[in-house]
Amino acid sequence: MDLARYLRDVPDFPKPGILFKDITPMLGSTEAMREAIERLGRLDVGRVDKVAAIESRGFLFGVPLALRLGVGFVPVRKPGKLPWKTHRVEYSLEYGTDAVEIHQDGVRAGERVLLVDDLLATGGTMGAACKLVENCGGIVAACAFVVELCFLPGRARLQGRRVESLLQVR
Amino acid sequence: MDLARYLRDVPDFPKPGILFKDITPMLGSTEAMREAIERLGRLDVGRVDKVAAIESRGFLFGVPLALRLGVGFVPVRKPGKLPWKTHRVEYSLEYGTDAVEIHQDGVRAGERVLLVDDLLATGGTMGAACKLVENCGGIVAACAFVVELCFLPGRARLQGRRVESLLQVR
Repeated sequence: MDLARYLRDVPDFPKPGILFKDITPMLGSTEAMREAIERLGRLDVGRVDKVAAIESRGFLFGVPLALRLGVGFVPVRKPGKLPWKTHRVEYSLEYGTDAVEIHQDGVRAGERVLLVDDLLATGGTMGAACKLVENCGGIVAACAFVVELCFLPGRARLQGRRVESLLQVR
Repeated sequence: MDLARYLRDVPDFPKPGILFKDITPMLGSTEAMREAIERLGRLDVGRVDKVAAIESRGFLFGVPLALRLGVGFVPVRKPGKLPWKTHRVEYSLEYGTDAVEIHQDGVRAGERVLLVDDLLATGGTMGAACKLVENCGGIVAACAFVVELCFLPGRARLQGRRVESLLQVR
């Protein structure tokens, strides 16, 4: 199955000059979603004890992937959203900074965590999510993406991490 | 399986005096998540052509439920997040208003849509999501929740809709 057929190009979103890769056609197809989750689940990344994903589009793939692998799911969220004790990591944006949080008991020491998100662009959020896992004492098994924008420096920003993607946009 | 065991009470979140029902223990358990999705999938709500869920915690249950039912998934998102042509519905909050959007081609005329979210509190967001489905020409099969806070007027606000919940907090 050619999963790329389930992406829709939307010009000038969110800003003029940007060609947005819309994943909603993939979400709308059971066959495409099953295929995407199956391919993510077959990535050769060693033992996986938990799946973690970043709010909110990462959630769309993270929970089905965790269920496919038979492991627990851990949400990574924007500041102030998680109710219990959290770790927080800040990261830089084009202008200013943002941050993400994880529950301190979301990952235990020594657990291997597969991080997943829909899209690899600049890699800033995923880099911060990796640090959150490590702040809990966990080990990043890999960073997995449905779509990788190869013309942006996301993979370089995640240097030293194992990075996997199902679809590469050049 | 007693799914209520997988909720954690967090006092004074997000505001003093509120006892927050934290679903992360449920997310962390494959067995509990499989049970929750299975129970949502067995709800007797007639034919279901699509599952729709509200950003971002609704996404955690919506995609696995859509895969379980073998139907497509449609995201309902905050304003400005969906890239293509959208319908928008505003709804009132305690102070001010908020809005949600759906892609205009997310639901087709006559399709029966099962809406799902993690928690029924005041019902404002879900009420708006129902209108979005109807603005597309769809039919709301039911509004399904993992947790229902019975001491809040959510069910009353969704009057005339079919409302289902797995866990009732009184």
